[in-house]
Amino acid sequence: MTKVSRFSIPDIEALPQDIRGRILAVQEKSGFVPNVFLVLARRPDEFRAFFAYHDALMEKDGGLSKAEREMIVVATSALNHCQYCVVAHGAILRIRARKPLLADQVATNYRKADLNARERALLDFACKVATESYAVDDTDLDAMRANGFDDEDIWDATAIAAFFALSNRLANVTAMRPNDEFYLLGRTPKET
Amino acid sequence: MTKVSRFSIPDIEALPQDIRGRILAVQEKSGFVPNVFLVLARRPDEFRAFFAYHDALMEKDGGLSKAEREMIVVATSALNHCQYCVVAHGAILRIRARKPLLADQVATNYRKADLNARERALLDFACKVATESYAVDDTDLDAMRANGFDDEDIWDATAIAAFFALSNRLANVTAMRPNDEFYLLGRTPKET
Amino acid sequence: MTKVSRFSIPDIEALPQDIRGRILAVQEKSGFVPNVFLVLARRPDEFRAFFAYHDALMEKDGGLSKAEREMIVVATSALNHCQYCVVAHGAILRIRARKPLLADQVATNYRKADLNARERALLDFACKVATESYAVDDTDLDAMRANGFDDEDIWDATAIAAFFALSNRLANVTAMRPNDEFYLLGRTPKET
Amino acid sequence: MTKVSRFSIPDIEALPQDIRGRILAVQEKSGFVPNVFLVLARRPDEFRAFFAYHDALMEKDGGLSKAEREMIVVATSALNHCQYCVVAHGAILRIRARKPLLADQVATNYRKADLNARERALLDFACKVATESYAVDDTDLDAMRANGFDDEDIWDATAIAAFFALSNRLANVTAMRPNDEFYLLGRTPKET
Amino acid sequence: MTKVSRFSIPDIEALPQDIRGRILAVQEKSGFVPNVFLVLARRPDEFRAFFAYHDALMEKDGGLSKAEREMIVVATSALNHCQYCVVAHGAILRIRARKPLLADQVATNYRKADLNARERALLDFACKVATESYAVDDTDLDAMRANGFDDEDIWDATAIAAFFALSNRLANVTAMRPNDEFYLLGRTPKET
Amino acid sequence: MTKVSRFSIPDIEALPQDIRGRILAVQEKSGFVPNVFLVLARRPDEFRAFFAYHDALMEKDGGLSKAEREMIVVATSALNHCQYCVVAHGAILRIRARKPLLADQVATNYRKADLNARERALLDFACKVATESYAVDDTDLDAMRANGFDDEDIWDATAIAAFFALSNRLANVTAMRPNDEFYLLGRTPKET
Repeated sequence: MTKVSRFSIPDIEALPQDIRGRILAVQEKSGFVPNVFLVLARRPDEFRAFFAYHDALMEKDGGLSKAEREMIVVATSALNHCQYCVVAHGAILRIRARKPLLADQVATNYRKADLNARERALLDFACKVATESYAVDDTDLDAMRANGFDDEDIWDATAIAAFFALSNRLANVTAMRPNDEFYLLGRTPKET
Repeated sequence: MTKVSRFSIPDIEALPQDIRGRILAVQEKSGFVPNVFLVLARRPDEFRAFFAYHDALMEKDGGLSKAEREMIVVATSALNHCQYCVVAHGAILRIRARKPLLADQVATNYRKADLNARERALLDFACKVATESYAVDDTDLDAMRANGFDDEDIWDATAIAAFFALSNRLANVTAMRPNDEFYLLGRTPKET
Repeated sequence: MTKVSRFSIPDIEALPQDIRGRILAVQEKSGFVPNVFLVLARRPDEFRAFFAYHDALMEKDGGLSKAEREMIVVATSALNHCQYCVVAHGAILRIRARKPLLADQVATNYRKADLNARERALLDFACKVATESYAVDDTDLDAMRANGFDDEDIWDATAIAAFFALSNRLANVTAMRPNDEFYLLGRTPKET
Repeated sequence: MTKVSRFSIPDIEALPQDIRGRILAVQEKSGFVPNVFLVLARRPDEFRAFFAYHDALMEKDGGLSKAEREMIVVATSALNHCQYCVVAHGAILRIRARKPLLADQVATNYRKADLNARERALLDFACKVATESYAVDDTDLDAMRANGFDDEDIWDATAIAAFFALSNRLANVTAMRPNDEFYLLGRTPKET
Repeated sequence: MTKVSRFSIPDIEALPQDIRGRILAVQEKSGFVPNVFLVLARRPDEFRAFFAYHDALMEKDGGLSKAEREMIVVATSALNHCQYCVVAHGAILRIRARKPLLADQVATNYRKADLNARERALLDFACKVATESYAVDDTDLDAMRANGFDDEDIWDATAIAAFFALSNRLANVTAMRPNDEFYLLGRTPKET
Repeated sequence: MTKVSRFSIPDIEALPQDIRGRILAVQEKSGFVPNVFLVLARRPDEFRAFFAYHDALMEKDGGLSKAEREMIVVATSALNHCQYCVVAHGAILRIRARKPLLADQVATNYRKADLNARERALLDFACKVATESYAVDDTDLDAMRANGFDDEDIWDATAIAAFFALSNRLANVTAMRPNDEFYLLGRTPKET
């Protein structure tokens, strides 16, 4: 079996009930267990906090569409050269945006992707949060507002870029391997 | 009153019970409410996940001493120019290490700080995780092992640097203001 | 029709015979005309030199396999955030290496791709040529030789990285759009 | 004899007729053989493509003066720390611009060189193509147009910066040595 | 005794009279001898020139207040990760500005410090001088003038940033250790 | 008359006697007044300290030859894109090293210059002092010692790189113009 982490992977049967339950649920829904669940399961408390944070940002309703949130993940993870997040969230972006080409475009250079002005402004902001958050100032927030984002949206964009700053570092150091299944998901119109 | 965030701060009385309880507990223990609690409270689910993650990494027992964990926070937050984390965790580092000078040394240039070889190796590793995690490879882990760190310690160092990558970005974008109290804490031997 | 360049595209019928012939040949072979041919055709002399150089490096026999040459293109073009070259040569890499996952891995972080030691050394070298050629010295050439590459291979790796330094800049400034067809090519084992 | 390349130099007598002819012609015209001809001659097909591309960009008539084209070469090659191109094209720039001081000024810091506004805008654009072509956008092209450059001029500036991105990398990796003759050419008013 | 330099420290008794006199004077005034005097004393001529330059910039009257000059030192020295200058001049800044929190704020991220618009503009300018002086142009000087600085003030800001570029490099290479006394100076309102 | 500074130039007749004397002496010796004397003269105290420091480092006897000291100036000033120092000290280097080609080589890429191993190690060290002095550690000093440099030589190399960090910033911000005379000095063997 291909190695999915530099660190040991726990036996699923031995995991706490809630964690085992979450893993089985995602397997049932997706048809496979994304490796992030296996890699992080060795630390149950961190696993719980990680996915609670993830769900609070990525699964709730709100001003940013789910496709917009995935765009932030793909664009910022590409800047961090995080293979797991680019491949896995690239798949989710293709599906949520119903655009088979978008993830590869955003991953390489979001400035050349098929984005509208709002989406471009969102990624300009999120990429600044990812790479030089110390220099974010009022003019950056004003540029977001000029594109129709309110304070809740700006918080969401910030928090998503920040959360994947964490996630990218975990995935990079663990050498977390993207599941083979992600590469093909959402690449044909009929799927999306 | 000095502004502590670019975003609105909720009324403490209106917060969910668990969050209000946590804030009152820290106030009782510390004598003041660190602003990170106020700034993040506007998003209860994110607040809960943030502090659950924080506590899982910073409060548990384990191979890294609590002072070593705070060193990672100060060194990596300085690279991100995060005023809140450098000032607040600088105070905690002074207290936990019982070294009044250490935090300012680590914040400016950890290579010149009063560290032993183990601590120096730890910060070399954590700073690489913070700034170019995509390039972390087996030689970096081997350097940690050569200094007595095992896989659990390496995971801890990684996860702490990753968690504060998140925290620094939130603090930078919200312009989270360190409480005045932090600046003086732990600066005299008698306190520590 | 989607815009494929910031600059005007000539009428194919009006092109010099040799250029028109080349374009029709690639269309017959591939089933579509890669946009690089259309974008560069407005300058016939530059078009001829560009493809003569390309073919001299990419189509000849030699010590580097065709898949290895395409790896260089994908890895270095990703560093230059060149959407056209990453997408188009990603497709060619998938086909030539008969590995559906390889191109996305190399584009995000070649250090985490499914490469053997020889391939890893090749991309370390090529990426240094792409980003800081002024610092390439004898130790870099020795590292290549230690992995079985001779002087002709080193020249090839250098020239390919150099040629795509040119190509990436042309594609980036013209906003050359990758054809939709490239995104799916070589993604399933049966194709490759 | 001083070494002019890290790679072997072919015997001129054994070269294909067209390449030998070109080398003898440049020797007759210049009084010496610039080392780029010797270093690249070991790969005849690449040699032919390289000089065909070079001549298509640097020798034709067009909106950019020949001195302006050489300015681009010197400014961008300096950013790549390419000794051969800075020294050799510095000499050509001195001669074509009839300005003995200009090449050294441009090589060190074109912002402080004796340039008019048009030339300054040209080098701002070309240096962005050389160093961060992925970020070139419509505002960069508009700045060129505001200084009187049309689309053909912008293409020329782009292609020259791109071609010397290639040339700089070849010269850097081969350690191509500038001929001693270049250093003094065009340094006194009477020569130019 | 803690090591204060990588280089040998001369015997104070054996120093030239003027240098010994200066050291005794500062000791009398401050209650301790700042290590910069001991570290530099081994080269009497350089010592004299260094402090003559320092005093000409930092001790004279002029358009920049003494606190403003110290802000420049702290902000630019932090960018150079110079422990001695950040700690020692941080103390002086606290005292001269009568603001116990300011030095730590400026050292971490001057953009988040308690500064007025004039001070912010001053540090924007000085930090550009420190990190990319080759790109300083008329628009930077105009931004200073728009904030009330005249040519003499701009010269002062430039010269102070430049002088500490020198000082930071000396302190970094010598591993000049800040005296313990500096860390606490000016941290309580009554002192300042 | 060509502008030699962004700041006003004082009337030589009105300068303090010692400064006027120094300027006349250099004019008599060199045949022209290098612009650095005119540009800095408006601040007599800074002028005196600047040249006292300069002379203490560049004119004294010692382990580093005068040509080696000028190499440091040219290599580090090129990294700072300082036109005045590269052109003026390039001339001095040509004369002191009696090598007409050396300055242009060092200014573009010292790694490709005609240097022996000792000189190469010296410039590796000095360039690290110039660009990332915070990271200089014992291994850098050991590399110097392995090439025959003692502590006094290492101090000299450090101090020269540090002094020109100051000088480059002054020259860049003042837009100090190199005198035309420097460009040709030392370019022919008979001069040197």
